[in-house]
Amino acid sequence: MGEPTPTQQATSWLSAFGDALARGDIAAAVAMFDTECYWRDLVTFTWNIKTCESREDIYAMLQATLAKVKPANWQVEGEATSGNGVTEAWFTFETAVARGRGLLRLRENKCWTLLTSMTELKGFEEKKGATRPMGAEHGVIRERKSWLERKQQEEAELGYSRQPYCLIIGGGQGGIALGARLKRLQVPTIIIEKNAKPGDSWRKRYKSLCLHDPVWYDHLPYLPFPDNWPVFSPKDKIGDWLEMYTKIMELNYWGSTVCKSASYDEVKGEWTVEVERDGKPVTLHPRQLVLATGMSAMPNLVQYPGAADFKGEQHHSSKHPGGDQYRGKKCIVIGSNNSAHDICADLWEHGADVTMVQRSSTHIARSDTLMDLALGGLYSEQAVKNGITTDKADLIFASVPYKIMHTFHIPVYQEMAKRDADLYARLEKAGFMLDFGEDGSGLFMKYLRRGSGYYIDVGASDLIADGKIKLKSGVTVERIKPNSVVFSDGSELPADLIVYATGYSSMNGWAAQLISKETADKVGKCWGLGSSTTKDPGPWEGELRNMWKPTQQPGLWFHGGNLHQSRHYSQFLSLQLKARMENIPTPVYGMNPVHHLG
Amino acid sequence: MGEPTPTQQATSWLSAFGDALARGDIAAAVAMFDTECYWRDLVTFTWNIKTCESREDIYAMLQATLAKVKPANWQVEGEATSGNGVTEAWFTFETAVARGRGLLRLRENKCWTLLTSMTELKGFEEKKGATRPMGAEHGVIRERKSWLERKQQEEAELGYSRQPYCLIIGGGQGGIALGARLKRLQVPTIIIEKNAKPGDSWRKRYKSLCLHDPVWYDHLPYLPFPDNWPVFSPKDKIGDWLEMYTKIMELNYWGSTVCKSASYDEVKGEWTVEVERDGKPVTLHPRQLVLATGMSAMPNLVQYPGAADFKGEQHHSSKHPGGDQYRGKKCIVIGSNNSAHDICADLWEHGADVTMVQRSSTHIARSDTLMDLALGGLYSEQAVKNGITTDKADLIFASVPYKIMHTFHIPVYQEMAKRDADLYARLEKAGFMLDFGEDGSGLFMKYLRRGSGYYIDVGASDLIADGKIKLKSGVTVERIKPNSVVFSDGSELPADLIVYATGYSSMNGWAAQLISKETADKVGKCWGLGSSTTKDPGPWEGELRNMWKPTQQPGLWFHGGNLHQSRHYSQFLSLQLKARMENIPTPVYGMNPVHHLG
Repeated sequence: MGEPTPTQQATSWLSAFGDALARGDIAAAVAMFDTECYWRDLVTFTWNIKTCESREDIYAMLQATLAKVKPANWQVEGEATSGNGVTEAWFTFETAVARGRGLLRLRENKCWTLLTSMTELKGFEEKKGATRPMGAEHGVIRERKSWLERKQQEEAELGYSRQPYCLIIGGGQGGIALGARLKRLQVPTIIIEKNAKPGDSWRKRYKSLCLHDPVWYDHLPYLPFPDNWPVFSPKDKIGDWLEMYTKIMELNYWGSTVCKSASYDEVKGEWTVEVERDGKPVTLHPRQLVLATGMSAMPNLVQYPGAADFKGEQHHSSKHPGGDQYRGKKCIVIGSNNSAHDICADLWEHGADVTMVQRSSTHIARSDTLMDLALGGLYSEQAVKNGITTDKADLIFASVPYKIMHTFHIPVYQEMAKRDADLYARLEKAGFMLDFGEDGSGLFMKYLRRGSGYYIDVGASDLIADGKIKLKSGVTVERIKPNSVVFSDGSELPADLIVYATGYSSMNGWAAQLISKETADKVGKCWGLGSSTTKDPGPWEGELRNMWKPTQQPGLWFHGGNLHQSRHYSQFLSLQLKARMENIPTPVYGMNPVHHLG
Repeated sequence: MGEPTPTQQATSWLSAFGDALARGDIAAAVAMFDTECYWRDLVTFTWNIKTCESREDIYAMLQATLAKVKPANWQVEGEATSGNGVTEAWFTFETAVARGRGLLRLRENKCWTLLTSMTELKGFEEKKGATRPMGAEHGVIRERKSWLERKQQEEAELGYSRQPYCLIIGGGQGGIALGARLKRLQVPTIIIEKNAKPGDSWRKRYKSLCLHDPVWYDHLPYLPFPDNWPVFSPKDKIGDWLEMYTKIMELNYWGSTVCKSASYDEVKGEWTVEVERDGKPVTLHPRQLVLATGMSAMPNLVQYPGAADFKGEQHHSSKHPGGDQYRGKKCIVIGSNNSAHDICADLWEHGADVTMVQRSSTHIARSDTLMDLALGGLYSEQAVKNGITTDKADLIFASVPYKIMHTFHIPVYQEMAKRDADLYARLEKAGFMLDFGEDGSGLFMKYLRRGSGYYIDVGASDLIADGKIKLKSGVTVERIKPNSVVFSDGSELPADLIVYATGYSSMNGWAAQLISKETADKVGKCWGLGSSTTKDPGPWEGELRNMWKPTQQPGLWFHGGNLHQSRHYSQFLSLQLKARMENIPTPVYGMNPVHHLG
């Protein structure tokens, strides 16, 4: 009798686990987990996005959910692998209402991490492949309507004579990706966007902007980029892609449309949303309202004394047009994250005199190093060669519990610090304040905790190290004079242009603006994990606050994040919405109380 | 010693074959072919699209080409298979200038069929996957131009201050697919199209039009349809796809542009092409001119006596708007192929009184039966499941020599005749003249030989069998009176509308129109195999006349066909053009003399 193979190990664990659940023996099921254990569920057991972080958590969760969920048919998918004492296996399973896919990690035949995610609702599967529509209706049908006529009819009716089930506010990549999934699930949906065309939210940014994430990380659902798509997509090119994607996916996309107000009728369970489409008022009554207004769309407008009297030009980074009109001008950029660096470099490249004002330390990660050390395993040409599809990469990514995620990142950034030691030394010599996050866990954890505090270096750091971009470090702005900026150290710099690269505020700011302060406070802060690090106060939440999951306000949802998150989490948000539309019971387990207002 | 596996058989044949070629031993190489043998080459040995149909043909071809081509490195790809005494194997190989892929069929260790096709030119490989562009240029570059600025600059310059190497006349699926390949090969190209937008050539057709070929057969290069794309794409939806594809592939597409004239300067080796873009004259000087004007774009305008005095409406099928404006009208459709059937059904569905005039027998193939019996093995959801990628399917399709292709089709259509016997009996009872092609080889052979003579039944045949679409069969139009049509049998029918579904003429008609009668006659008839069947006079040509390969007119090329052909053969045409642009020697072997003028 030799050692069992990884696949045999996983198979026997999974079938024993399935049996325990089938006979309702929660104690036995829980006993199959290691003392350190995590179960992350994406809407299959909990109708929530939830990580149980101990046997006790798991016990409580199963107590509350097992009887209704009725999980069954746990099957290992493909061959399991093992390394460093961990056996890893893909699997599929079912619940009473859905099919799911998961990833299991065993240590000494006990479960260390378990991911369960929903792939489709039984009876409401997406029509694709063998079940795709016929298109042409064969046979003869008197007065048949063509595809175009049906499409035009839907466009004419939806929102007017017929109400959408779901309204998405914000037509960036988040709203578009979610809209595409809802379309495939046949959930009548309208996406409204203040800009005229899909992609404009990218086109209107500063000229030099390119995605900082590589192409393998950026695919939208259903229609991957062609294999010659650039590694870092220029903003106008991604804009064109979003525009074409929206058309091909046949989304009901209302451009040049702004939301004026929204209110919820608890009794009817529906929203009244006042919008202005091309200047004309329209009242919508969706049952579900999704704010996909972007994590980075609510500018932090810092008001420094004297700003009103400034004689030059001043704007938030989100409004910055690009450098070419500032040749020879004295430009002060307040901030030191991605946008600040991009804008400083762009201004310098166009011959402006540029000073960056760094108010607090910043994490710098060189783009190439980041791709190589942090993303390469899951999102790269090599990963594709290794058979890691985008779908698999997303699930592997999702399978690492937030609670311990930083422990996997710290060594990566220690390696980065070594590899790019020269750059970091030169930056510090230039007076730049560096950090790698409070626990050294680097960029992605900063992104999850606070959505800021870093720059993915594509060149600007050299300009700073070389003094080409001047640096005012460790100071804040004291006040603004008609032709200059005065700093907390008493120094003063003449200025023709001030760019406020001062970041963005929590998405629930949009709820306050569109619905009410009460509703915003009721749902509380969005994003962040409760890590008790800067800008991410505790207590520990275990998941991103309010993102892609039920909130304290029925019928109100938040969707956003980078292209990877928009792609992956739109799957679980769309399934939650479809289930509600079809009146499938969706008892939510483990909603966190609200600890912070925004 | 057991039997050698199919892979071993193929490997030993291929290495012996490669050795013989390497040492220039043509006799030995030829001796490895069966007495019945075919070698089809797609521009690797012959810089032509050419089938050698005997040992003698192969001997002569190798005599002329081997020394220059220097083939090497013949490797079986994957596992060979065998069945019915035939061993089949994929392989790769190289020439002095290119890499290729092929398909080999052995019978008793002798080669029965050999396909050699070019995949890429050494040193000019498409930039994709690991070699894709970076997009963002990292580092700092003074006065850097953004992607959009570079794109706008190219659009402003190409055709004005800078000449395209290649001009494609016609912006339908053919011109667009070829344009996409040339873009990836960095061949400066302009596509001109009389309609305003890509896809309009589809949008402007009659309302009910859908593709008659299923989605698996219709993909464009590089960007497959998403997996929920309808089986039979409605015309406006394929129109939107072409528009989106053109934008995403960044093609230089001039809409609302017509070609006025073209002339070739033999000395300079360049064309002078007068076009009108948005009404403004532009003179272009491409070195290569591709007519992608469509196999079905030069209407056969039959002039019946009295037509000029007809008081009703009359138009060619290509101009037919759709049935809704003809409710209650008396409509006569002259012709009995695809368009005629579609238009009759559409008119009937909209409550018109419709008569089809069948002048000669027609092949009817029910769409479902066709998909199941004829296409299913290569282009279907099942084929995809079986690992037959579009690329593989295209090569398998291409590997069947035209000379014997009909022998594989005849049994398929015998089966069809059985399966749909009832429909055929009802049609004949209604007086409809049926055929399966002169040798019973059915639809696709008719398409290759004459590009006409069939209807893929999606419902109209029932209307004819049931007498709902009236039939005038076996007659021709004698003359047209102000309010009626008189037939060769003396009968007369009142008419408010006459649709001339009288088909299209050879593509070299475009050469006559745009260049000169002399040039059109010099290149001769396009399409057809020389099968000595109706509308495809002999002698036998072995390949489609003038399609995707060098013609008797240097710098003039014809591209067209259905979506499958536009996709697959654009690969070989684009490689021929790229090679010429890079001054790679392209000695053409085995050009056929011109036997027919058009």
